[in-house]
Amino acid sequence: MELTVTQENFSRALSAVGRVATNKAGLPILNNILLRTDGKRLLVAATNLEIATTQYIGAKIAKPGAITIPARLITEFVGSLPKGSIDLKVTNDNLHISSGHFNSIINGVIADDFPELPTINEESSISYSIGIEDFKQAVSQTIITASNDSTRPVLTGVYWHSHEGNLFLAATDGYRLSERRLVETKSDVSAIIPVQTLQEVLRNINETAEEVDILFDETQVRFRINEAEIISRLVDGNFPDYRQLIPAKSDTKATVDKQEFVRVTKIAGLFARESGGSVVVTVDPDKNTVSLHSVASELGENTSELEAKITGDGSITLNSRYLSEALSVLDTDTLEFSFSGKLSPCILKSTKKDTNYYHVIMPLKS
Amino acid sequence: MELTVTQENFSRALSAVGRVATNKAGLPILNNILLRTDGKRLLVAATNLEIATTQYIGAKIAKPGAITIPARLITEFVGSLPKGSIDLKVTNDNLHISSGHFNSIINGVIADDFPELPTINEESSISYSIGIEDFKQAVSQTIITASNDSTRPVLTGVYWHSHEGNLFLAATDGYRLSERRLVETKSDVSAIIPVQTLQEVLRNINETAEEVDILFDETQVRFRINEAEIISRLVDGNFPDYRQLIPAKSDTKATVDKQEFVRVTKIAGLFARESGGSVVVTVDPDKNTVSLHSVASELGENTSELEAKITGDGSITLNSRYLSEALSVLDTDTLEFSFSGKLSPCILKSTKKDTNYYHVIMPLKS
Repeated sequence: MELTVTQENFSRALSAVGRVATNKAGLPILNNILLRTDGKRLLVAATNLEIATTQYIGAKIAKPGAITIPARLITEFVGSLPKGSIDLKVTNDNLHISSGHFNSIINGVIADDFPELPTINEESSISYSIGIEDFKQAVSQTIITASNDSTRPVLTGVYWHSHEGNLFLAATDGYRLSERRLVETKSDVSAIIPVQTLQEVLRNINETAEEVDILFDETQVRFRINEAEIISRLVDGNFPDYRQLIPAKSDTKATVDKQEFVRVTKIAGLFARESGGSVVVTVDPDKNTVSLHSVASELGENTSELEAKITGDGSITLNSRYLSEALSVLDTDTLEFSFSGKLSPCILKSTKKDTNYYHVIMPLKS
Repeated sequence: MELTVTQENFSRALSAVGRVATNKAGLPILNNILLRTDGKRLLVAATNLEIATTQYIGAKIAKPGAITIPARLITEFVGSLPKGSIDLKVTNDNLHISSGHFNSIINGVIADDFPELPTINEESSISYSIGIEDFKQAVSQTIITASNDSTRPVLTGVYWHSHEGNLFLAATDGYRLSERRLVETKSDVSAIIPVQTLQEVLRNINETAEEVDILFDETQVRFRINEAEIISRLVDGNFPDYRQLIPAKSDTKATVDKQEFVRVTKIAGLFARESGGSVVVTVDPDKNTVSLHSVASELGENTSELEAKITGDGSITLNSRYLSEALSVLDTDTLEFSFSGKLSPCILKSTKKDTNYYHVIMPLKS
């Protein structure tokens, strides 16, 4: 292999794929990045056997070939080089990298030892092109409620599925739940995408990205963003029938300013650290306020109020961290907070008509 | 105690002193911040028995008094409140804090249990007013070479001392040494200031600070920056006679561009991780270059060059981290790098005439 690339392109590609190159599966070669000529391009790829990520960059190729190279060293080295062209040449499984006054040899491993990169069934008809901002928001709004408990794998992913003509994303860890409507669809989709995969896709979005192309086959999903490609396995299993958990109606409703609610929740959370985040939220129709009360047994206590439009009354005990996280992904100035007594879940949503996002939090025992 | 302060001033004061409030000495009350009325001001203070830091803020005082309060909770709480006035009131050793819709009670400890804040002998004549930029630079340039090995306490501080009519700062960890000339002085000074104290003073410098007033007595030093005051013990003992360690002349000299040297050192360091940072620096008078060579036994090797003006020739083995850190505090575009053979120390300094800073690094065995 012998070729020339630009430092800018090569460094960007190495940084993007390098995060996936980790030796979790116990195979040392997974710490390496695969470099392989592909027509007039250089393929730069890494895999951890669950996710494979590939970048293509333009290259002037004098001699085709392939090699794998330790990810961290080459990524940091190329990232530190000045802008301009970089010459790469393989001799005896070693990669010679030179750029101006900088000359390095990095010991590689032959590409034949690298796991084959996964391919997807291109004939699948389940595909979407999603605008980049919608994609980022929908993924951020749902991964936040996924579980990280690997004993229930189906809950460690986001459930992409069709329902009444729309594509929905949903995730739950058993304590909270989120659902986001994304686009209309005529396909019949039901796929659980691992949170790690979605996070990796988010990291591959740069300022030049305009949309994400998504293709599902039976067992895998592929994301394409410009010249980057990520293929991941899907989580095996059936997602629980979460819709039955969302209360159809609530007795108590409060409409509040989001920024004020964020501040009040943060302050209540400071005093709730010693009690597992427990804060009591009380809706008072006489004062037209929502108040949050928390007690740090040895340290003190806090009551913070905010103005609200109220229907009904009552109180509910919630985890302040869950409340903060829900508020952080609610894209609205004014939100509705509703519940029915101390035992059923509370719902947060925008007051916008036809809102596309619901966030549900189970109460704590109080 | 009953008074009103502004959120902005109170929050800034709490953040500034809160860093010192840690329970290192095993006394729980050292986790607390002391609040005490002082005429028309509120004193906000913390101490770890080595460093005491005090801030004065304006207050509308209805009833004088004092209380101590857990540092972390009050700092975070006040920091989260909206701008505006905050009412403080002590009843039964509890501090009631209220601001608009926010009401908290924080359990305190009576101020009598708090260690007495240190005072300094104001009659001492050893005092300096140092411009803020000079102070920041001189401290940053010297603390970097101080030791963190507590078995030799004198090396864990910066040696402030007079020599031939000037005040010098010097620090060494036995592997490297730095010396900075600061101002002219007629006093006879010899004081070792703990690195932690100097770091705390740096953190107290905000954009409104113009100078630092420094006062030494026999065993303590006091720094004043606007309304902040830090009093620290000095390190007991004699600083080694470091001047004899700085070579009077060098056989080999290279003048190089600093930014290029930074990049070359960084890259050489990537390949030197497995060899304890060891890089071989070679000065070549024929090619007019300085080259850095490093070997990562299993991973590969690197040679990077930069152009230089050369006198003499030879090579020396250095720790790339020490070299990087030295370059990070050298305030110059062009620097002189000099040494005499493989065994004596190398010196880095600006090529500016009458430069006020020397950085010395001992070679590694090669």
